[in-house]
Amino acid sequence: MEKGVTMEITDRREFLKKAGVLGLGLLATGGIAGIAASCGKAEQAIQPIATVTAPPVTVTATPAAAAALPWPYKKLDAVAAAEAAYAGYSAGGCMYGAFEGIMSQLRATVGSPYDTIPTAFSKYGGGGISGWGTICGALNGIAAALYFPFAQSVANPIINEVYGWYGVTLLPDYTPAKPKFATCKQSVADSQLCHQSVTKWCLASGFKTTSAERGDRCAWLTAAVVKKTVDLMNLQADGAFKATFAVPASVTGCLSCHGKGGALENVHITNQTDCKECHTPLPSSHPPVK
Amino acid sequence: MEKGVTMEITDRREFLKKAGVLGLGLLATGGIAGIAASCGKAEQAIQPIATVTAPPVTVTATPAAAAALPWPYKKLDAVAAAEAAYAGYSAGGCMYGAFEGIMSQLRATVGSPYDTIPTAFSKYGGGGISGWGTICGALNGIAAALYFPFAQSVANPIINEVYGWYGVTLLPDYTPAKPKFATCKQSVADSQLCHQSVTKWCLASGFKTTSAERGDRCAWLTAAVVKKTVDLMNLQADGAFKATFAVPASVTGCLSCHGKGGALENVHITNQTDCKECHTPLPSSHPPVK
Repeated sequence: MEKGVTMEITDRREFLKKAGVLGLGLLATGGIAGIAASCGKAEQAIQPIATVTAPPVTVTATPAAAAALPWPYKKLDAVAAAEAAYAGYSAGGCMYGAFEGIMSQLRATVGSPYDTIPTAFSKYGGGGISGWGTICGALNGIAAALYFPFAQSVANPIINEVYGWYGVTLLPDYTPAKPKFATCKQSVADSQLCHQSVTKWCLASGFKTTSAERGDRCAWLTAAVVKKTVDLMNLQADGAFKATFAVPASVTGCLSCHGKGGALENVHITNQTDCKECHTPLPSSHPPVK
Repeated sequence: MEKGVTMEITDRREFLKKAGVLGLGLLATGGIAGIAASCGKAEQAIQPIATVTAPPVTVTATPAAAAALPWPYKKLDAVAAAEAAYAGYSAGGCMYGAFEGIMSQLRATVGSPYDTIPTAFSKYGGGGISGWGTICGALNGIAAALYFPFAQSVANPIINEVYGWYGVTLLPDYTPAKPKFATCKQSVADSQLCHQSVTKWCLASGFKTTSAERGDRCAWLTAAVVKKTVDLMNLQADGAFKATFAVPASVTGCLSCHGKGGALENVHITNQTDCKECHTPLPSSHPPVK
């Protein structure tokens, strides 16, 4: 579908020539590195000029042996996907649990070409990616999975719906069939980040982040996120999905200055649960919040 | 390699029976939902019990038609990968640029089975995933790509090295051969998040987040992240990769209480650039920082 987006790169001569025409005096001021350094702070490192001539490269969304996205979709069993997600968590962490939770059902229900994807690669997302506490792996996993059966224009509203729900809802709200621990405390993450989601749960439950209970909570949560996602995917397949997520008024208030069209436009977020989670208190120099 | 990690799930009868034996009085107090609710806050929603019986599911890291990971690796041209990343940014955003930047070179250098992956799926990561400003898409993309040629034990130290470098370095430090804009201001992100990385750059450069210059900065940055990653992948292939990333003392100070082995253990991060970016000022009740 997006096959054939290509760009050929030969060498840097054309750029240098063009820059020379513009009177930038590149060669006299340190070449390409000089350009970058000229607009930087005094302490900025001068960039070395790579002497390697880059060979022609081809960028393509659909390599030769891959079927073009999006792939077919048939309605899935959301409970089966959630159970696969819970099982997958133990086998490879949160992102793998979520990704494999959905992909396993696509393999079972649609079949090829879903069976060509080695879902194990998604294990990278555990602990907010290799322990960095960034995006919740369950949220990373469902977003990746959504781009296989759906075009971007269909997938993004579902991502927004799941991410918005995740930020404000008492979770987990799905109970696995055979959980390691019979109960799981619920908490609200106020965020889509692993670090914040886990910390909020530890504060609510009293369990430590290194406890087996916390691990099981993340497995429950992975199942809950997958259940929610597949429910929405099925609604989409029925033509019945309606986006309900709206950026909260507190966030649109911040973005009225910091976002698109605002006086500052320095914040690259279009969707968010809550700015105050990190930005409290605001500096005393900040004008009254709208 | 990890083929055959399976778990069969039949129905919930066994769990309910087991829970009944434990004397939890489930059926009298609201079934499985009652368990979850019983440990929650008063305002917690009662979870509905799904009446669907989940069919048996199979979780597997390597589906039938996929080659088991890791796949072969040959040293790549880091400049060619960076140029492909820069081109890829225009075609599909930051995560796609980074993922396709590396995968395109793996296809060109190793060939099959890398040509079976429709890299377009990685477009989901743009703008910190569908505009949510979470993980920088370039960082998401290189982490995903690293899990194809390398086992987790090899890939994670490279992820840590790139993420650590990204957090503290004036970037972008690679100049594309034919950039849209001839210069690009450098800035330090102090974070691995899209939101923070872009905001810091906007403050340093004076450009708005919605400007064409900001878009081009993210393309340069995607190229820089890929260049750094492939350099490290090649060192790994030569047996010469040495991890230099160490969690900063300011962070290990925080984790001495909040991390593993600390008094609280409520923070699920093992790697981080800086806690103070969000946690400033600390509440007045917080003891003196170590």
